[in-house]
Amino acid sequence: MKIIIAPDSFKESLTAKQVCQAIENGLVRVWQDAEFVHIPVADGGEGTVQSLVDATNGAIIECQVKGPLGDTVEAFYGRLGGEHAHTAVIEMAAASGLHHVPPAKRDPKATSSFGTGELISHALNQGATKLIIGLGGSATNDGGMGMLEALGVQFLDKQENAISGNGIGLTKIESLSAHQLDPRLANCDIVIACDVDNPLCGEHGATATFGKQKGATEEDTKLLDDALNHYADLVEALMGKSIKNIAGAGAAGGSGAAFLGFTNATLKPGIQIVLETLAIDRHLEGADLVFTGEGRIDWQSAHGKTPVGVAQAAKAFNLPVIALAGGLGDNYQAVYEHGIDAVFAATPRPFDLSTAFEEAGVNMANLAENVARVWQCSQRS
Amino acid sequence: MKIIIAPDSFKESLTAKQVCQAIENGLVRVWQDAEFVHIPVADGGEGTVQSLVDATNGAIIECQVKGPLGDTVEAFYGRLGGEHAHTAVIEMAAASGLHHVPPAKRDPKATSSFGTGELISHALNQGATKLIIGLGGSATNDGGMGMLEALGVQFLDKQENAISGNGIGLTKIESLSAHQLDPRLANCDIVIACDVDNPLCGEHGATATFGKQKGATEEDTKLLDDALNHYADLVEALMGKSIKNIAGAGAAGGSGAAFLGFTNATLKPGIQIVLETLAIDRHLEGADLVFTGEGRIDWQSAHGKTPVGVAQAAKAFNLPVIALAGGLGDNYQAVYEHGIDAVFAATPRPFDLSTAFEEAGVNMANLAENVARVWQCSQRS
Repeated sequence: MKIIIAPDSFKESLTAKQVCQAIENGLVRVWQDAEFVHIPVADGGEGTVQSLVDATNGAIIECQVKGPLGDTVEAFYGRLGGEHAHTAVIEMAAASGLHHVPPAKRDPKATSSFGTGELISHALNQGATKLIIGLGGSATNDGGMGMLEALGVQFLDKQENAISGNGIGLTKIESLSAHQLDPRLANCDIVIACDVDNPLCGEHGATATFGKQKGATEEDTKLLDDALNHYADLVEALMGKSIKNIAGAGAAGGSGAAFLGFTNATLKPGIQIVLETLAIDRHLEGADLVFTGEGRIDWQSAHGKTPVGVAQAAKAFNLPVIALAGGLGDNYQAVYEHGIDAVFAATPRPFDLSTAFEEAGVNMANLAENVARVWQCSQRS
Repeated sequence: MKIIIAPDSFKESLTAKQVCQAIENGLVRVWQDAEFVHIPVADGGEGTVQSLVDATNGAIIECQVKGPLGDTVEAFYGRLGGEHAHTAVIEMAAASGLHHVPPAKRDPKATSSFGTGELISHALNQGATKLIIGLGGSATNDGGMGMLEALGVQFLDKQENAISGNGIGLTKIESLSAHQLDPRLANCDIVIACDVDNPLCGEHGATATFGKQKGATEEDTKLLDDALNHYADLVEALMGKSIKNIAGAGAAGGSGAAFLGFTNATLKPGIQIVLETLAIDRHLEGADLVFTGEGRIDWQSAHGKTPVGVAQAAKAFNLPVIALAGGLGDNYQAVYEHGIDAVFAATPRPFDLSTAFEEAGVNMANLAENVARVWQCSQRS
């Protein structure tokens, strides 16, 4: 019996790799002779780097870069292992994430995506020829201006002075130049993990949709949205690409647009990029049963999250898929229509969240064991 | 497909009948055409009357009797339905339970089992020819003296004055007479549901083991244990039966001994009596799968509780048994060795006990559905 274990991480509790091990620990009590294949998955959001590094035996590269407010922060990215050794995986949040900015200092006029550009440079210096970049969780609304600045794009104001990339910088741009843009980017395969379809500007744009959580006032929102609009016009004039209305251009404070304008990047759902990178199909071939999981499964899980992504890949092989969650939320039943055959929570009794986090490994193993027990009973019947 | 649903009640949350319905509600989403047989079970403890009444379409009979302290209390017993119409089920706690005595008034010198005798009389008056009596939960330590008094046994002190049955009365008995014992008892089939094996007296006896929780001081314990010892000698002299060292004689403050001394009662584990009464074997014949359950399943569940009782009956027919619990406690895995194939908790996420109670029906149904989903997947594989 070949069993694929392909869960996401359980946030604040277990890495995806630990979830794999916990599930195997339970299943092996019933299926001593089974072949267990661990595929720690992430959906392109937080944890994607760790998950892909774990799955490919890669390495985490730590480096200091400028944080969203310009001070130095500890950031990291992943260099994948094995056949993927030239692939770097970068989460924008690692350098430019909201968690680097205390709530009182959140202000998208001040924050910059510069550090993300530094991470990309670092990866290119290390020989990366493929970049997987996860958007999401950024503290910025600078249209990726800071990141582009770090990679060599020059932004000038009315007086032709160089401007720093951040929200306020964005409002001052009168011209820009890509002459010094890092030439290695042109030969780099760049895929952007993006799970939102917001355009750059307007009522569904980056600022209107995500500005408030980054600290934008109503006034800021108008100011920054206008600035992104003007910026997009300048980019289009320079690069000949219209980036304003592409779905996903508004991701990560407009960083999606920056990639679209200045690189050959393609935007894809994060889970799709991850599953392709993990070559999950290769593992699913010849498997008998698939386990997936996530910290919480609810109606939102039907939209581009790990369990449904895994289930859809498994369904191409007509495999049964069982999801084990830390907890189930409203209308989790929505996942049944997306290839998941059964869903269980690893909560063995009423208890609080911190106990759930502490006991997650043990409880997942016990749950997995009992699912295997039912499976076995049914086989014997 | 024939599916037996035989759970206990979930204390403070769902009756056993409601648990049956909740489980069916979930299973029927997967098995639209299955035959579902509901067997609400109880293990002879609290809830046994309701469960047997529900299972046989019987009736609850309410009546006023003397409570443990002699004041009038509302009590009840069950008259079973159908072919069991001449069977009455009495929980001693209904008349003589600890819940009738506020903590500050708990004193086994003062409490009497008289009301239990009144319930028995009432049932006999209604034509009962079989009594099922659940011991447990009593506030008394009178050796069943109060109950026997209500049924006609006379207790006399040194001065040959009649004595009332209670703890203090017990200490004064010098002689007793069964001449006026209700003659209908002799023709009555009496089975006592008893899940403890304590003898009447001594260090594992009624007083030493259960006295404290009924309010006995150390002094009381000595006094009452001696009194039970003397009482047993008098009973043996009169009835020719040694009752002191029979396992279960010490149940319910010595009421076990009273039944053994003055009637032809047999003591059995509660779950065994219940399952025999429900003729569970008749239902298990030809079934495909058994669901059982309890509010909480833990290591104690291996000792005479409903799920294990049901599982052992099911194993005689080689049927798979799946237990669904409100919650799982320490070492619940002990039940695997007693015929339960898999165990799940209906807790879908971390939450508190009151939410668990409120949502129990919905959560049980959802859990049952997913177990059925796994079963189906396995069948198709």
